[in-house]
Amino acid sequence: MKLSEKIKEKPWLGWVLYGATVIVVFLIGLLGSSIIERRSESNQIVQNVKPIKDWEPRNEVWGENYPREYETYLATQDTSFASKHGGSARIDMLERYPDLVVLWAGYAFSRDYNQSRGHYLAIKDIRNTLRTDVPQPATCWTCKSPDVPRLMDQLGIAEFYKKPWKELGSEVVNSIGCQDCHDNKTMNLRISRPALAEAFKRQGKDITKSTHQEMRSLVCAQCHVEYYFKGKEEKYLTFPWDKGFTVEDMEKYYDEVEHVDWVHKLSKAPMLKAQHPDYEIFQMGIHSQRGLACADCHMPYKSEGGIKFTDHHVQSPLNNIANSCQVCHRESENTLRNNVYDRQDKIFELGNSVTNVLAKAHIEAKIAWDNGATEEQMKPILKLIRQAQWRWDFVGASHGGSFHAPLECARILGNAILKGQEARNLLTELLIKLNVKIPVQMPDISTKIKAQVYIGLNMDSLYKAKSVFLNETIPQWNKAAKDKGYTISGY
Amino acid sequence: MKLSEKIKEKPWLGWVLYGATVIVVFLIGLLGSSIIERRSESNQIVQNVKPIKDWEPRNEVWGENYPREYETYLATQDTSFASKHGGSARIDMLERYPDLVVLWAGYAFSRDYNQSRGHYLAIKDIRNTLRTDVPQPATCWTCKSPDVPRLMDQLGIAEFYKKPWKELGSEVVNSIGCQDCHDNKTMNLRISRPALAEAFKRQGKDITKSTHQEMRSLVCAQCHVEYYFKGKEEKYLTFPWDKGFTVEDMEKYYDEVEHVDWVHKLSKAPMLKAQHPDYEIFQMGIHSQRGLACADCHMPYKSEGGIKFTDHHVQSPLNNIANSCQVCHRESENTLRNNVYDRQDKIFELGNSVTNVLAKAHIEAKIAWDNGATEEQMKPILKLIRQAQWRWDFVGASHGGSFHAPLECARILGNAILKGQEARNLLTELLIKLNVKIPVQMPDISTKIKAQVYIGLNMDSLYKAKSVFLNETIPQWNKAAKDKGYTISGY
Repeated sequence: MKLSEKIKEKPWLGWVLYGATVIVVFLIGLLGSSIIERRSESNQIVQNVKPIKDWEPRNEVWGENYPREYETYLATQDTSFASKHGGSARIDMLERYPDLVVLWAGYAFSRDYNQSRGHYLAIKDIRNTLRTDVPQPATCWTCKSPDVPRLMDQLGIAEFYKKPWKELGSEVVNSIGCQDCHDNKTMNLRISRPALAEAFKRQGKDITKSTHQEMRSLVCAQCHVEYYFKGKEEKYLTFPWDKGFTVEDMEKYYDEVEHVDWVHKLSKAPMLKAQHPDYEIFQMGIHSQRGLACADCHMPYKSEGGIKFTDHHVQSPLNNIANSCQVCHRESENTLRNNVYDRQDKIFELGNSVTNVLAKAHIEAKIAWDNGATEEQMKPILKLIRQAQWRWDFVGASHGGSFHAPLECARILGNAILKGQEARNLLTELLIKLNVKIPVQMPDISTKIKAQVYIGLNMDSLYKAKSVFLNETIPQWNKAAKDKGYTISGY
Repeated sequence: MKLSEKIKEKPWLGWVLYGATVIVVFLIGLLGSSIIERRSESNQIVQNVKPIKDWEPRNEVWGENYPREYETYLATQDTSFASKHGGSARIDMLERYPDLVVLWAGYAFSRDYNQSRGHYLAIKDIRNTLRTDVPQPATCWTCKSPDVPRLMDQLGIAEFYKKPWKELGSEVVNSIGCQDCHDNKTMNLRISRPALAEAFKRQGKDITKSTHQEMRSLVCAQCHVEYYFKGKEEKYLTFPWDKGFTVEDMEKYYDEVEHVDWVHKLSKAPMLKAQHPDYEIFQMGIHSQRGLACADCHMPYKSEGGIKFTDHHVQSPLNNIANSCQVCHRESENTLRNNVYDRQDKIFELGNSVTNVLAKAHIEAKIAWDNGATEEQMKPILKLIRQAQWRWDFVGASHGGSFHAPLECARILGNAILKGQEARNLLTELLIKLNVKIPVQMPDISTKIKAQVYIGLNMDSLYKAKSVFLNETIPQWNKAAKDKGYTISGY
């Protein structure tokens, strides 16, 4: 029976069909309206922006135009997340691994070294650390704040670096934020720090020719790299990339320019301190080789209302597996997390072995000096110690290296063990020659405090000086900054 | 204008349409016929099989029923493929790495050790190697031939192992093949060797409950595993899995049963020889953790005519990237190959460091003994040498370990460096105590021949004895085998 015949039989059926049609059409209308509304919402972000002036350091000013990006950026002050080997909680690494105090004896890291925290806390953390109590150049501010490009513009780049760190205390008050990576007019990603562009130039590359996807890593590579302060006076921020990106390439660079970060207090070895070669190590791993950028996992896309935007809560992807790993990988969060932990565990195992070897090597070297070793006898030993610790630190100082390129990290640490143990082997020979009983008696360095006492740090006076600084200097800095119209991140 | 009106205007258009329809219908008919034909071709392989008797060792008899599988199996005798670090070419590893001669001094591996070749050549290779000239038990035949299950059925398992290797020379003549993995009636995958099933049983697992996908690895795990010959007389093939699959788990097992493969000729260390823990290492890598089996990459599906079948040319997937890696990975062959080489390079770098450290340690230990070291002084040193070499060999002896689980291999090798160097450190102390000048003078072991002379091997007499064996014994074995109706693989 045809529908028209059915309707003739039961006339109410016609009304039902009529009503259903009305409802469906109404719903389609609603959908259309929603689409139009969402589109106009998307357009708003382009329409309502207020102009941002050049060198604007205040993140909250940029935030008025881009509330979603700004709100997620503010979330970088969240320190609740602690993963198996780190996260964003403020872990006292010297407390957890007291051997580190020995490895950095004579260098400010032996006073204070905590697990890194989010971008928003950069100003607070650099003010609070005991490492800024020794006289530091303004170069230390370079990566901490969008006030830096403004100051470099005012003072000149080289003049900026040369200033004492404390002199700019009331000028550098906005934590790592918008202007560090974005152009104020186009919002395009932009390199705001000279060191990266200069390093590219020395390699014969023009950073302004980078693709958008490359820029999604390069803005991070302005800071998340290995660097050093070139020149005793100049303290010019320089990336040691001229020979390449591997740990051996950079060592060759440092050896050729005879760079020494500090002379070790115990072993007197001419040490290198690795910074955080995150960009370099990332490139040696499979995710980079498959075309991913830092932002893909650390700042994945997010959707709110009708708007898709980049999550500016830069953090460990382990804290956001659903939006990072699971975009490509179809395994459960738990499986993926355990895959990462598995890699981390193996690298930590090797890393801890090197830490242990190096602590012994420094202590044995000190005992050799104490018993009359000569410069000539010590030279090959100290070179091996420098090489081993450089390798160990290259891996240890990098954020996430054990995930970014686990095998490269293992290779580096294996070589660190080889060289560290070789140093100890030579030390055994030398100590016996110096009539020292083998094995030497090891000091008790089982806690941070004991280790700090052993290397001769007077922590009480350091804490006291810090307390004076925090209670007297910081309020002055803050007042001066507020008088100039700044808000101070984290205060 | 409607089509009918058009045709009225131009009558030839009708004929064109008519002709096109005829062609299309004809082509559809052809397609249907092809589908039906392919189906019937597929059915043939089930219809035409001849029954295969129990314990049938002859691969060519199975091959009559399964010509495609058999033909691809025969391709395992191809030795043309040599990759960067191996492949299936017969590389003389002692020639390439003369330090190995020192590491295996006192053990048959120091005479002769070649890169492994394909399954079809197993009988030829075991007859040819200098390693079978020392008295070996029949246990050595276990993994070489489908004649073994037949003999175990005839003689009993324990009785089989106990026989001298040479006694079964005319019985074990068919190279690794069909019956090793397949049931003769159902063609299902089947465990034919007792050692694997027994190891499962001791772990409280029933191997017959394994899934098909598990079986696609387990048939390989009958041989591609770590094992030892238990009992001085029994020589009972046993997998040391009771405590787990890691290098440390198996070491603990061996230590507890006080197993020693041989006493090192130079250092007198109580050594372990790792076999090829391929299955164990594979499990520690991501491909296994994502559910892959050995056969997925080493025996990928292949299509011939209308039939999809498993490629029995078991080989390195690097030789067949299109059908193995590229089933899942969308990168170019070149990219994928370089990804593998990258992993291999890093593991080889660490492995070579350990080889070097161990060669020195054995030689230094020999010098210590020569200068009056006592058992008590040497004990901790020899334990470290045993541990370091066990770790090194666990990685080195495994086929493809550097790809299957690169990070686990690196972790193991890092620990091998640590322990090997620790041994050398103790040796330095001891040698000085024994009034030996440090560093000791190293012998020239820069070639295989020089290294073999150094460890006291009389290679001339070994080659001579081998030549007699190959020219006199082998023809007798072959004749006896042929008299019994066997064809001998590779002859």
